[in-house]
Amino acid sequence: MSPRGRRPAGEDTRAVILAAARQEFAGKGYDASSLRAIARTAGVDPALVHHYFEGKPELFAETMELPVRPAQVVAALLDGPREQVGERVVRTFFGIWDSPDGRERLVALIRSAVSHEEAARMLREFLAREVFGRIASALGVPDPELRAGLAVSQMVGVALMRYVMGLEPIASAGTEELVAHLAPTLQRYLAD
Amino acid sequence: MSPRGRRPAGEDTRAVILAAARQEFAGKGYDASSLRAIARTAGVDPALVHHYFEGKPELFAETMELPVRPAQVVAALLDGPREQVGERVVRTFFGIWDSPDGRERLVALIRSAVSHEEAARMLREFLAREVFGRIASALGVPDPELRAGLAVSQMVGVALMRYVMGLEPIASAGTEELVAHLAPTLQRYLAD
Repeated sequence: MSPRGRRPAGEDTRAVILAAARQEFAGKGYDASSLRAIARTAGVDPALVHHYFEGKPELFAETMELPVRPAQVVAALLDGPREQVGERVVRTFFGIWDSPDGRERLVALIRSAVSHEEAARMLREFLAREVFGRIASALGVPDPELRAGLAVSQMVGVALMRYVMGLEPIASAGTEELVAHLAPTLQRYLAD
Repeated sequence: MSPRGRRPAGEDTRAVILAAARQEFAGKGYDASSLRAIARTAGVDPALVHHYFEGKPELFAETMELPVRPAQVVAALLDGPREQVGERVVRTFFGIWDSPDGRERLVALIRSAVSHEEAARMLREFLAREVFGRIASALGVPDPELRAGLAVSQMVGVALMRYVMGLEPIASAGTEELVAHLAPTLQRYLAD
């Protein structure tokens, strides 16, 4: 334990910032939360937040225990032929779901998003802004925010039916079959 | 009040059947529920269920207080050029949402579907089988059930973001803008 009146150091500070971030994201959603306000709640200098976390998307990913780092995923999705962006998005998405860690963590996330509006709001805002929004912006399509929202609506809708509700025949359809149907949709929203 | 030991008549019987149907659909989902089991729960002859309700889809629509009759909606969606089915689906969907009765009833429905897995399951099964499944089957596409599921996943996803979560910019986007993006998706899933 740190002595009273002193800031906790090292892992303690990191944990205090994470707890403050959880509170801030849950209360205001992803978009309206700021690293400055999180630092204030944690009682630390904003520079310390930047010392421990690369930025808001990375802090959010750790807060939600997301199985992937957003900046890396976006870079990977943009790396390759433009006419295959939709297919890469869908394959990457199912790849994360089908990894043992990813599946367990994401089902917990979606369940919490289904039963708690705040969880759903922050997750969707995050996906729309930091994942699909960045892809649509990088590809220079008009209305990138609306297109990102449509991409989120499709992929979250499919995840709900396949992994959470277990609705047939989507629940037991093969990945290749789903990719064939969904890739053109994501391609049109994000890249066309 | 009816005397003890006699079946209640008229509106009472109708209400007893509706209550039994609510219980049956919530317990087993839409697909696994049968008019025979509902009649058994209600303690009436199956013929009486058919006397009061046209069939399972109509009984479900009344149970959920859906603002539209499924058979009429499907007939209207199939009535017109095949290459515009996607556009008719999206326009009809937003038309129902944007009617005063429809909006209020559907927001209540989706909220209950977001917080109760059984409500979500029966609503999605119903939409997949009785609305989108019938359209895909009538148009003779391969894998009509999978395509119906994908259509449901897209439209429920958009409804969640636009009307329940109020996520921008989907929440305040104009109908025409959404139709332009979504119609080709629904067209591909249901008719191509």
